[in-house]
Amino acid sequence: MPQPLEFYFDFSSPYGYFAASRIDGIAERHGRSTVWRPILLGAIFKLTGQQPLTSIPMKGSYALHDLMRSARWFGLPFRMPGKFPVPSIAPCRAYYWLQDRDPAAAKALAQALYRAYFVEDRDISSPEVTANVAAKLGHDKAAVLDAVNDAAVKERLKAEVDAAIERGVFGSPYIVVDGEPFWGSDRLDQIEQWLAKGKW
Amino acid sequence: MPQPLEFYFDFSSPYGYFAASRIDGIAERHGRSTVWRPILLGAIFKLTGQQPLTSIPMKGSYALHDLMRSARWFGLPFRMPGKFPVPSIAPCRAYYWLQDRDPAAAKALAQALYRAYFVEDRDISSPEVTANVAAKLGHDKAAVLDAVNDAAVKERLKAEVDAAIERGVFGSPYIVVDGEPFWGSDRLDQIEQWLAKGKW
Repeated sequence: MPQPLEFYFDFSSPYGYFAASRIDGIAERHGRSTVWRPILLGAIFKLTGQQPLTSIPMKGSYALHDLMRSARWFGLPFRMPGKFPVPSIAPCRAYYWLQDRDPAAAKALAQALYRAYFVEDRDISSPEVTANVAAKLGHDKAAVLDAVNDAAVKERLKAEVDAAIERGVFGSPYIVVDGEPFWGSDRLDQIEQWLAKGKW
Repeated sequence: MPQPLEFYFDFSSPYGYFAASRIDGIAERHGRSTVWRPILLGAIFKLTGQQPLTSIPMKGSYALHDLMRSARWFGLPFRMPGKFPVPSIAPCRAYYWLQDRDPAAAKALAQALYRAYFVEDRDISSPEVTANVAAKLGHDKAAVLDAVNDAAVKERLKAEVDAAIERGVFGSPYIVVDGEPFWGSDRLDQIEQWLAKGKW
């Protein structure tokens, strides 16, 4: 039984949004499944000393241009959120809470949260906004708000982030295929080839 | 008359080496020429606060792995130099000195310097090594060593780096196609499409 592809991403990462639109299709074409693992890049950047891409001098203004062009390249609707980046604690907690109940529904929630942030410019760092996005998909809004404040869910997210760091995850998207790590939405073609033909 | 593609790179940049193996072929397939402009990434990183990729915690060890895999992806011989990165002042000066005399020979020298560094693990930061690489291509070794210390050549390189910074070049490879900037060897497919079909 082949292992699922592990898809690490931050809800505030535009390249994560691009990869989220493709990763399940790539896996399915090669008879593989995926596990989605949202992480908190802010916590990881504190360890690695990195800054959000758009705040780096010179690189930042290119990054904004590259994001718009890459969204068109992937054929995705996209607009740069008014507030960027945002802490993605609430979306992550809602995600893991739902994943334990219904993994497919959790992926659908993740996609909806990405659209809310990168298409509709809604501030998903707000538990209220996250719960509204979930409610639109038929989930109980009060239950989502409770989950965001639940001690066990908080621990769960912390454990996921710690495990990701332990594994070497330093960016988003970060995709592990049978132990082989790939970073960035610009490695999807390499992932596809790895799945099709194995190591080159 | 279409403008040439402008190819900015650092001689110490492995992704620059990968792009150097492809950029002229891509341009030619679309009836275009290229101008190669080596730059000093160290000077630019001082402005942007960036560090060499391989020295960033977590990201660094991934980068080494990605470089080996990407070299195979591009079908290029590659080994990580024992000393990395190195200042590329001598190769840059030799390049611009030769470019003023024979642009095609200067490109051939750049390719040979990249191979010396990333295949043969020779320290091209040494003027002696740079001059030996040039001599192997039939250039006068003493003339190359003189060029590396020539005041006008020094000024020329400084002016090139200043112009690159002015233009927003913050990394290597950085390729400008009709005013449109692309950063990274993982944007070559986008460049190819831009040349084939224009803006998407």
